[in-house]
Amino acid sequence: MAPSPSKPKAAGATDKPLLAVLKGERRDPPPMWLMRQAGRYLPEYRQLREHKGSFLDLVYDSDAAAEVTLQPLGRFDFDAAILFSDILIVPFAIGQNLSFVAGEGPRLTPQLLSADLDSLTPTLTRLEPVYETVRKVRQRLAPNKTLIGFAGAPWTVATYMVAGQGSRDQSETRRLAYADSDRFAAIIARIEDVTFAYLSGQIEAGAEIIQLFDSWAGSLAPAQFERWVIEPTARLVERLRGEHPGIPIIGFPKGAGSKLRAYADETGVDCVGLDETVDPLWAHREFAADFPVQGNLDPLALIAGGEQMQDSVRRIVDAFRDRPHIFNLGHGILPDTPIDNVERLVALLKGSA
Amino acid sequence: MAPSPSKPKAAGATDKPLLAVLKGERRDPPPMWLMRQAGRYLPEYRQLREHKGSFLDLVYDSDAAAEVTLQPLGRFDFDAAILFSDILIVPFAIGQNLSFVAGEGPRLTPQLLSADLDSLTPTLTRLEPVYETVRKVRQRLAPNKTLIGFAGAPWTVATYMVAGQGSRDQSETRRLAYADSDRFAAIIARIEDVTFAYLSGQIEAGAEIIQLFDSWAGSLAPAQFERWVIEPTARLVERLRGEHPGIPIIGFPKGAGSKLRAYADETGVDCVGLDETVDPLWAHREFAADFPVQGNLDPLALIAGGEQMQDSVRRIVDAFRDRPHIFNLGHGILPDTPIDNVERLVALLKGSA
Repeated sequence: MAPSPSKPKAAGATDKPLLAVLKGERRDPPPMWLMRQAGRYLPEYRQLREHKGSFLDLVYDSDAAAEVTLQPLGRFDFDAAILFSDILIVPFAIGQNLSFVAGEGPRLTPQLLSADLDSLTPTLTRLEPVYETVRKVRQRLAPNKTLIGFAGAPWTVATYMVAGQGSRDQSETRRLAYADSDRFAAIIARIEDVTFAYLSGQIEAGAEIIQLFDSWAGSLAPAQFERWVIEPTARLVERLRGEHPGIPIIGFPKGAGSKLRAYADETGVDCVGLDETVDPLWAHREFAADFPVQGNLDPLALIAGGEQMQDSVRRIVDAFRDRPHIFNLGHGILPDTPIDNVERLVALLKGSA
Repeated sequence: MAPSPSKPKAAGATDKPLLAVLKGERRDPPPMWLMRQAGRYLPEYRQLREHKGSFLDLVYDSDAAAEVTLQPLGRFDFDAAILFSDILIVPFAIGQNLSFVAGEGPRLTPQLLSADLDSLTPTLTRLEPVYETVRKVRQRLAPNKTLIGFAGAPWTVATYMVAGQGSRDQSETRRLAYADSDRFAAIIARIEDVTFAYLSGQIEAGAEIIQLFDSWAGSLAPAQFERWVIEPTARLVERLRGEHPGIPIIGFPKGAGSKLRAYADETGVDCVGLDETVDPLWAHREFAADFPVQGNLDPLALIAGGEQMQDSVRRIVDAFRDRPHIFNLGHGILPDTPIDNVERLVALLKGSA
């Protein structure tokens, strides 16, 4: 099970492959986890959901959220747990009302397209149950596993706060960012502040890595990408580093495509997550030789299984053989993913397939 | 109005700046047109639509479709007209029923997720009214303007044929392509054949340039992108070149991001259209020095107008100053775009602003 390190480690030190890779070590096989690994594809998750109320109730029940966080590690030899929470906890703490409408996704009110930011009353205590979840997970986590905390990146969080919900192409928010960039900059600044507090709380409670999810980074034109994705992320990374020296940060600007290298160079993240549309051979040429990357199996290839999955996995592992690499999906695992295929993926990677 | 050519042209020859750029000439200012330039942002288009029935009725009325094709050139000093038609004419000719539901977009029945391709009866006569439109436009077009014909690329057309409608992330089609690649390959092959016939008909009727719209190219993982975007496009380009030597072909793989260079190199298109998320400075470094590119103003920057538009235009024009470049949007002009901003854009580009 334990991967063979490419460098000797200090005798007695507990090996955490994910942390090693984020410091620039190569590992063969690469450590792995899967985005949304604590989720609906797991029967034990679906069962627990039936007994709890809403999604938000589950996030706010620290015992249950810790249980859900750990569920995938009970089944699979993943190298990390990722906190079970939601990126919209930050807008909730900023003062919007948050609800999850079954089959329709999240709703935030009042939406900031019309409401003023200053009409919201920040309630940072809404973040605290999440820290409690982090503490509980950390107490139960095996010593060779790593706990990943996370938040949405400011741009992506802003798209939900402005529209009040998910949107097809983030059009309302992109329009606001052009039409009233001062007002939009104030929204971004507020998100940065609360996200900094939120991530600091997670780190103090025991999160060992932070991932910033910028799920809608792909919809922005380059000048807007610089202003609303790169700059806020760079400021957040700098503040986190100042307060928590050495905390590893993974940035995941989904859809950033040709702007990935600029993102890596200018934000200062330790590792970039690649979505499944990125050609690993291209990425390997694009990034500096020792820069860690994470990704990027197509979640649909994991559903397909068989040779299609094997070929995709081989392509990724081969491309990144000579660089620090964390194996992952290119985005979240889908609810109808067969458990058997996840088992085969782990076996394939860990060399027992 | 006439741009000053960077090379002397033969005395008496009519200068068509778009064709010159596609042969590898630089032009200053770059020639321009706008995707979806014949459309709802124009009051004269909206007026004509009120008097015609459905969108499809308008496409099939060659006199009206020719009128709509020419409308933007009556107002703006664009360098090209683009045929007014729809990419779903090809599925209609393949034998699906086509309707446009107001407010919901197109519907194709039966959808091929369940129905068999062989249950459809090809009706290539459904393509012929479009050729008539091309002939009528060509008769009325000024000698320095160019007529662009177009079709959807096979992958994008397949996503509509499989799902029977537009879809958020082309998930049904991507799943089918993994789950039953033989069946999906047969759908792609049928689309290739009919698209070849359709584009040949347009060229014979007078289209001087062909653009292939691959609007959903961005959703595919790299191996799938090679098989379903690059390979079908390369085959189509080869067949068109064989039958119509010298016909310039612009490929527009929207969202292809980091895979744009592979697309350009492997499909054999003469020019690649860039969507608005591509950084022009990156693109300029990425492509061979004399390779023509088209694009890529953010349609929302055109709506914003003012300095935001000027800065975006300058960034694009400056980046591509030393290469053959056709100025365009990064995708279609939006219905609420102010006419005044389009006028300012033309003035800005043509040097009278």
